[in-house]
Amino acid sequence: MLVLDQVLENGTEHAELLPATNDNHGGVIVDMEEAMDSEVFVTSLRASISRWRQQGKKGIWIKLPIGLVNLIEPAVGEGFWYHHAEPNYLMLVCWISETTSTIPANASHRVSIGAIVLNDKREVLVVQEKSGRFQGTGVWKIPTGTVDEGENIFMAAKREVEEETGIETEFLEILAFRQSHKMFFEKSDLFFICMMRPLSFDIQTQELEIEAAQWMPFEEYAAQPFAQQHELFKYITDICLAKVQGDYTGLSQIPVTSFFNDKLSCLYLNSRDLNNYLASSDQA
Amino acid sequence: MLVLDQVLENGTEHAELLPATNDNHGGVIVDMEEAMDSEVFVTSLRASISRWRQQGKKGIWIKLPIGLVNLIEPAVGEGFWYHHAEPNYLMLVCWISETTSTIPANASHRVSIGAIVLNDKREVLVVQEKSGRFQGTGVWKIPTGTVDEGENIFMAAKREVEEETGIETEFLEILAFRQSHKMFFEKSDLFFICMMRPLSFDIQTQELEIEAAQWMPFEEYAAQPFAQQHELFKYITDICLAKVQGDYTGLSQIPVTSFFNDKLSCLYLNSRDLNNYLASSDQA
Repeated sequence: MLVLDQVLENGTEHAELLPATNDNHGGVIVDMEEAMDSEVFVTSLRASISRWRQQGKKGIWIKLPIGLVNLIEPAVGEGFWYHHAEPNYLMLVCWISETTSTIPANASHRVSIGAIVLNDKREVLVVQEKSGRFQGTGVWKIPTGTVDEGENIFMAAKREVEEETGIETEFLEILAFRQSHKMFFEKSDLFFICMMRPLSFDIQTQELEIEAAQWMPFEEYAAQPFAQQHELFKYITDICLAKVQGDYTGLSQIPVTSFFNDKLSCLYLNSRDLNNYLASSDQA
Repeated sequence: MLVLDQVLENGTEHAELLPATNDNHGGVIVDMEEAMDSEVFVTSLRASISRWRQQGKKGIWIKLPIGLVNLIEPAVGEGFWYHHAEPNYLMLVCWISETTSTIPANASHRVSIGAIVLNDKREVLVVQEKSGRFQGTGVWKIPTGTVDEGENIFMAAKREVEEETGIETEFLEILAFRQSHKMFFEKSDLFFICMMRPLSFDIQTQELEIEAAQWMPFEEYAAQPFAQQHELFKYITDICLAKVQGDYTGLSQIPVTSFFNDKLSCLYLNSRDLNNYLASSDQA
């Protein structure tokens, strides 16, 4: 953290530097928290940029909470542009180095899950939603939902099922996934179809989003017109039958240490095929 | 498209309505293109919101190109907040209905690929990069890159390999993928490991990003210390060997019509297992 201090800018004026922390890529992050007059901000920003140039800094990030919306226009006036935004802040960025910019791409995909929860009687857990595309259609569908920022896909599947129906589950496999584009504005969507084993059986419907929920014989679910008419749902039904009656294997999850930040991340792979190979190569 | 027209606001003033198009969810999108004085904008916005309330509209989107940065502060003053941003625009949103908000979540994940290109001599296509984590380490790595907004994963793998090495390829399968978190600020990353078959063999190194590229015997690639030391790379090596020497099947891609917008999207599934099941159930 560079402390707020006085710097001689161009030999003519004193200006307080903006508070900044170094990132891991030769840049700095300015996390603005306190309200500031926009003219004072511009003076400090210019002095800070001058200092960062001397230090050989490259990418300059400015995070502005929505309460400091008055500082966006002056930052853009000094050459900053938008990187990403969340409801309560805007992240601006500027590349002040002569080298080629390595500013990372913004997030481009939303990630969602559909959870197939099958019990021993070969009944599937289905819901009717109070809003959305299927509202009022009478269609019984599998629980679906959006993966939260920072949430593992398999955990999102467990959470959504429990939130919507009260049923606890164990994640087994990702059976398949779909990538589609322009789902909202220019953004894309990855939809992961997760196979789950129920650990409880008494349904508690969530009132806000769910009209009704039940265990439904799989054949009855698959016989619904929407599941017959739409290519994606037909595939899901077939894959599900192949999983139950045949020898279909999807991708199961293993925690691995991330190469980049030493945190745990999740690797999804065909464990059956890999383990078969490793067992056979051990014997050889 | 609501045309710009005159509306009697509260019986007292005339204000020009903002140009807006209806979205498919009971809301409207204001795509601001022309420069506007911020006071004129506020007057028009208030009149427009009044009209939209009468019409029962719910979510109101305002897309502001970076050139109209002066309109952000007044929009926030009228109750709007940020939804997402790209380098050249900011999308603001407001929910003006009494009903529960159904504003979609922002994109939360960046998507990237690593391409394993193996030729018939069991050599793997590897590169040394001019920047990034492996710069100057002497490590030979598989081509990697970011999936563009609106781009299919398998197409991104083909593109990155061709950009970096000039080698044309055919996509075979996604062997595995990794989800990791907080890769830049709060955003997550999905990294898909793609198996590719080369269709050409003469390497043309891209000068900007790539220091060197070559076909390397797979055993030599796998014997590099980094591939031995890091859990993820060890798994990738094992999966690759299981693919070549064993019976490992990942997820291959099938185009399907999207249920939501009738566009083509991509379904990734274990085709071998599904086809085996369908063949056996046909016979039964």
